[in-house]
Amino acid sequence: MASVKPSVPKGTRDFSPAEMAKRNFIFDTIKSVFRKYGYQQIETPSMENLSTLTGKYGDEGDKLIFKVLNSGDFLSKANDQYLTEKNSNLLTASISEKALRYDLTVPFARYVVQHQNEITFPFKRFQVQPVWRADRPQRGRYREFYQCDADVVGSTSLLNEAEFVQIYDEALSKLGLKDFTIKINNRKILSGVAEVIDKGDSIIDLTVAIDKLDKIGLDGVIKELLDRGFTQADIDRIKPVILLQGTNGEKLASLRSALQASTVGLQGCYELETVFRYLQYTPLKRATLELDITLARGLNYYTGAIFEVKTNEVAMGSIGGGGRYDDLTGMFGLKGLTGAGISFGADRIYDVLEELNLFPASAVAGTKVLIICFDEAGEAYALPLLQKLRNSNISAELYPAGAKIKKQMDYANNKQIPFTILIGSDEMQSGLLTLKNMESGEQEKLTGEDILAKLIA
Amino acid sequence: MASVKPSVPKGTRDFSPAEMAKRNFIFDTIKSVFRKYGYQQIETPSMENLSTLTGKYGDEGDKLIFKVLNSGDFLSKANDQYLTEKNSNLLTASISEKALRYDLTVPFARYVVQHQNEITFPFKRFQVQPVWRADRPQRGRYREFYQCDADVVGSTSLLNEAEFVQIYDEALSKLGLKDFTIKINNRKILSGVAEVIDKGDSIIDLTVAIDKLDKIGLDGVIKELLDRGFTQADIDRIKPVILLQGTNGEKLASLRSALQASTVGLQGCYELETVFRYLQYTPLKRATLELDITLARGLNYYTGAIFEVKTNEVAMGSIGGGGRYDDLTGMFGLKGLTGAGISFGADRIYDVLEELNLFPASAVAGTKVLIICFDEAGEAYALPLLQKLRNSNISAELYPAGAKIKKQMDYANNKQIPFTILIGSDEMQSGLLTLKNMESGEQEKLTGEDILAKLIA
Repeated sequence: MASVKPSVPKGTRDFSPAEMAKRNFIFDTIKSVFRKYGYQQIETPSMENLSTLTGKYGDEGDKLIFKVLNSGDFLSKANDQYLTEKNSNLLTASISEKALRYDLTVPFARYVVQHQNEITFPFKRFQVQPVWRADRPQRGRYREFYQCDADVVGSTSLLNEAEFVQIYDEALSKLGLKDFTIKINNRKILSGVAEVIDKGDSIIDLTVAIDKLDKIGLDGVIKELLDRGFTQADIDRIKPVILLQGTNGEKLASLRSALQASTVGLQGCYELETVFRYLQYTPLKRATLELDITLARGLNYYTGAIFEVKTNEVAMGSIGGGGRYDDLTGMFGLKGLTGAGISFGADRIYDVLEELNLFPASAVAGTKVLIICFDEAGEAYALPLLQKLRNSNISAELYPAGAKIKKQMDYANNKQIPFTILIGSDEMQSGLLTLKNMESGEQEKLTGEDILAKLIA
Repeated sequence: MASVKPSVPKGTRDFSPAEMAKRNFIFDTIKSVFRKYGYQQIETPSMENLSTLTGKYGDEGDKLIFKVLNSGDFLSKANDQYLTEKNSNLLTASISEKALRYDLTVPFARYVVQHQNEITFPFKRFQVQPVWRADRPQRGRYREFYQCDADVVGSTSLLNEAEFVQIYDEALSKLGLKDFTIKINNRKILSGVAEVIDKGDSIIDLTVAIDKLDKIGLDGVIKELLDRGFTQADIDRIKPVILLQGTNGEKLASLRSALQASTVGLQGCYELETVFRYLQYTPLKRATLELDITLARGLNYYTGAIFEVKTNEVAMGSIGGGGRYDDLTGMFGLKGLTGAGISFGADRIYDVLEELNLFPASAVAGTKVLIICFDEAGEAYALPLLQKLRNSNISAELYPAGAKIKKQMDYANNKQIPFTILIGSDEMQSGLLTLKNMESGEQEKLTGEDILAKLIA
């Protein structure tokens, strides 16, 4: 057999025990906060019918969906003409009926419509599962990655938006972040800005341009707006809005005045004010909440609030985002059900916590104590103690007898096991076992009972 | 847009919040036991290179592997002749490079070989991830299902086998099962039985026949053995072994005597005796351990111990199984690394716990209290209390104002929320809120502080 070292498909990853412990810390923390706010977990199948997914992510997205080949003699049902012409695009539908989940939102919408008679609305669900995209792999971009979403469907209340701010604040604070900003905007304000300069149709052009303020500065944005057909007069009217300064309250006051001619713009102001009002009762732990009217992510999608979260401690793209989208389930024929949701970027959060050294030792702790012995007599002596340790809920291992002590110590060190218990013939005779603290190197002779008491403490 | 109700691919499932809570209870319990015994979690990608998987599961298995269509213009690289001949089998390799994980063992072997220089052996890993098989769906058989495996690689010690018995015992006891049997056998004993009748080559025929003892009885087994070419003299020598009775110790004594002419058979006896000896220090909690020499599952695969677990409380196939397989990683060019492992059948365990009504209320508890109010003033009054509840780690929700009280009560009932707090104008004036126990219907008037104290307790 060839001994070529095996590998994983490009853009996919193995997760080692150390990586899994850290990932579990992130996911468990976020899930516990979701639950505290009344969100409930669901899971959907990795494969969806291809027809469920196509047409939901735009033409570019459709190309990035991984299709699963039909089982058995898939060519028997294939279209002959497409085969002869080698037309991959058109052939796909006749040899593939299923595809891998591309995000969690479309499967959630499908779930809601399919199970609408079993669901109590408002339905607050969270979902933490992998998704797959045939993107070109690059640093920080994978073909398989976990999404971590919470969405509520069937409630127009802006209390939901306020709670999303609290969920971000609480989860990221619990993860150890100390300085991060939750940016909030509202699509209706962007619509209002376009409306007051009579460019309602150009809202995409407008937002694409002002979204770049951070990167290209005011002059760059103005140039881009001129290129996209806005007049100098338009720009003069928009400029104060783009350059909005001050507290969130001051910004809202300026917006109310700039948007007084736009009903939708004023509705956007009202919605933001309401979210801020809900939040006044409950001070945020560590987050800064910032109204940022240049925030336009996923504009084609969101119809109300828009969220984005950034850490201020390291250079990193957004670590979370979301918003409200009316008519979540319309794509599956159930009209008029509004949804709002947020997502945590687990891979980026992982990198941030790693860089800031924020993973707590307790979160990544594995086996607490390794019993080291030398022969079968030692094993027999060790086994009742091993059982007592485990009965006291201590993760414990006995290294099988026969290996040299150095090898057993290396095992403890490599697995970062903080304590070892040595059982040699002296120890068995005296009943005093050697407990070694692997970090300090300190050793002491104790009875099994004393070791147990010490490790439980 | 068509309003055909969307669905999932056949053989796949959505999991509702109630189902997820129960599944999490099962997986969390098993994982906590794995960890206590020093097993560490890894994850591998859902997609493996097709070449990693093919040839590992036999011809039938290969057909059941879900292949992923190459992205982009996949036909441009397709073999023309196979296309023209519509030869699905041969075309597959030229339009598909990746496939979905079929089990957790082959990806684990691949992982060990790929990461051998980072791994400390013995490597004790567990893995809980979905696998996919293009089987014909039927009751209890799905095309996507979770496997839940623990394996140790790089240790020949029979202590590992003993610990697997303990892990089954502890995990299934924790899940609430009261009466279950862990069957154990050893491939070397089966080899020994074949050897003593000079039918070493017919071990498969032998074991396939005696494996059916439960179903077809002794006469059936004898008939099948005769059909498979065994002589009456062979059968006379095997019969005492098949009909082995008594305690495990008595069975082993009989086997030792029957297999005295077979070195491999005696080795099998020694291995079983050693496992029993390890276990004598640590009484099993609820499991019965039974030496069953008719147990032959996965015979082509296992080389030492063989395990199978059955509940005695309801009629159900095996809820777990495993064994030792020498040369786990040989398929990827790393020879001589022995492995042993066990698996829990999560879907069957789910059905057993459901039938026996063993899911504890605490495991499936979601939101603990719903605050019900009637208008914006009520919301404003409720929000600080809501925050205090959550700060005390109580899952709490506020139903957005505006809905009728009946609707809010229905929401609490449907979500099985055990408590509601009612805030109307009387309550706001007096500061005494109504706390309702949704199960008993009992109501009392309490201050916010008293409610908090009561719900924390």
